[in-house]
Amino acid sequence: MAAPTSTGILVSSESIARPFREDIIETLKSSSKKPRLVGILSTSAAPSRFYAEFTKKTCDDLQIDFVLKTVGAASPEGGQEGEGVEEAIIECNEDSNVDGIMVYYPIFGGTQDQYLQQVVSPYKDVEGLHFKFHYNLYHNIRFVDPKTLSNPTIASSSNTAEAVTEASEGTVKSILPCTPLAIVKCLEHMGVYNKILPYGNRAYGKTVTVINRSEVVGRPLAALLSNDGSRVFSADIDSIQEYNKRSSSTTGNSRGFHPHHVVHPCSLSLQECLAISDVVVSAVPSPNYKVKTEWLKDGCICINVSSDKNFEKDVREKASIYLPTIGKVTILMLLRNL
Amino acid sequence: MAAPTSTGILVSSESIARPFREDIIETLKSSSKKPRLVGILSTSAAPSRFYAEFTKKTCDDLQIDFVLKTVGAASPEGGQEGEGVEEAIIECNEDSNVDGIMVYYPIFGGTQDQYLQQVVSPYKDVEGLHFKFHYNLYHNIRFVDPKTLSNPTIASSSNTAEAVTEASEGTVKSILPCTPLAIVKCLEHMGVYNKILPYGNRAYGKTVTVINRSEVVGRPLAALLSNDGSRVFSADIDSIQEYNKRSSSTTGNSRGFHPHHVVHPCSLSLQECLAISDVVVSAVPSPNYKVKTEWLKDGCICINVSSDKNFEKDVREKASIYLPTIGKVTILMLLRNL
Repeated sequence: MAAPTSTGILVSSESIARPFREDIIETLKSSSKKPRLVGILSTSAAPSRFYAEFTKKTCDDLQIDFVLKTVGAASPEGGQEGEGVEEAIIECNEDSNVDGIMVYYPIFGGTQDQYLQQVVSPYKDVEGLHFKFHYNLYHNIRFVDPKTLSNPTIASSSNTAEAVTEASEGTVKSILPCTPLAIVKCLEHMGVYNKILPYGNRAYGKTVTVINRSEVVGRPLAALLSNDGSRVFSADIDSIQEYNKRSSSTTGNSRGFHPHHVVHPCSLSLQECLAISDVVVSAVPSPNYKVKTEWLKDGCICINVSSDKNFEKDVREKASIYLPTIGKVTILMLLRNL
Repeated sequence: MAAPTSTGILVSSESIARPFREDIIETLKSSSKKPRLVGILSTSAAPSRFYAEFTKKTCDDLQIDFVLKTVGAASPEGGQEGEGVEEAIIECNEDSNVDGIMVYYPIFGGTQDQYLQQVVSPYKDVEGLHFKFHYNLYHNIRFVDPKTLSNPTIASSSNTAEAVTEASEGTVKSILPCTPLAIVKCLEHMGVYNKILPYGNRAYGKTVTVINRSEVVGRPLAALLSNDGSRVFSADIDSIQEYNKRSSSTTGNSRGFHPHHVVHPCSLSLQECLAISDVVVSAVPSPNYKVKTEWLKDGCICINVSSDKNFEKDVREKASIYLPTIGKVTILMLLRNL
């Protein structure tokens, strides 16, 4: 085959964000009260401060009432990194004027941040970071009875034999973690999700590599994409796993599928995964990590989710579409959750 | 002062465990039904397999019905590390014949293991690893209405203005994470908790250094000890923090205190903390980490919680009491929770 002479399309997250922004404005017009979102900033980290300012600007544009609450190292009086953040969350949980809560992470890192994510009331968790929402995602439970939100384990577990993929009376869509959801929306925009296929199976036939397996981005994204029918390679620093809803992960001879994704270890190397991937999503928080352009499948779609650039400058020599950042989409997903 | 010529006492966890064992046997005599504990082993890790066998032996001695459920890499048919562990937990949650669930960690590590800890029903979580129990511990909520267990965030947050340190009608003691609880029981046995002081303040006057700040051991232990009145230095690889319930952390002139512990950064070095610590607890999972004997305060009490030895061989040249392992006590705390 001759080498491609054209360069791939560069997509801006603004173009993807626009229809969502218009949707939100439309919805707010018909609502009687401005919703209030409180952002809690407790560290001196520049990216968090920047993200908080960006939230404020986006909310102002949309006529959403955004209040930035600064505590600890972020407060004008000064203080320690993360000081007072748990108390600030609890105040917002109890304040009936607050509709949504957003906390700027990382604060303490790892499991202590995950503890804080459980402190946020699931009724106000616009980021979708509460255990309940992850549990629903991993079990492909797409609709919930809002009353069961207060009971994260018992209520859902009785649903797991059969994934609840259809709405029934009195249920609403379960909130999805906002970064993985934003990535799915970007993939829909870029034509990866096929609207001709039935809801819940629209990524069928696609092979995706997700580089990163954190509880906030990579693992929920891999689960989400495989629940939607695609074959997903989940790569982290130690290992590669395959997420698949179908009983046969290779030839596709069997068309039977599990109610939710199943995870298998994978013996392919990252290079081999990339060679067969229609979509590559990378979210590695390091400026030194780069996906090798030469390993990409010709015509693939690449999304960079990291604040560092995980793709090489010449990525569009191979990629048909490249999306360098998803920030604007993520924040709109979060406001939609409000 | 002359150098000490005597060597400190070596305490065995068996001597601490004995009265708890007898208590459990006594309680079981008066119960109509043998409680059933299910242990879920999903990895090939030798320490987990060893711990599972140890649980079995302890349960047999106590006439507790222990069932070991092996899945994934631990099952006879073989499988992947951690494969099927979430499904096994959910089965046990739903099985009314199962009274308690114990999962052998680490499985996937970090935040993914913390996710699994939330999948275990709080009604069967004998290890006390559910978010609800950590939340209560950090907020010094010692008694809970069992009905609120199903509502981890909303119900508790209204209690935080005043820590619930006294039992009221219809409440039971909140389960405590079993390793930190076992350490407290060891400290009680070794005379660190003063029974003359009122309940909830019996560690007042003691200075403790805890080396490790994980969500499973170090952070809950530091909170627990400071809630009980002691001054705690929490050391991890990056920083040292001071946990203190009292408003004045230094001279003790003010006797006022907060309803629960407050965390401050600490400018002391580990060497300076150890020089003033009555108790040193170390839980660093590394064979290379050793607390320097020469840094210890003469006559202090040392507890090693790591499966590696964190103290030097000559620790008893300085320590008045040394407890090299707490394993037997931890498992009894867990069975008491049953």
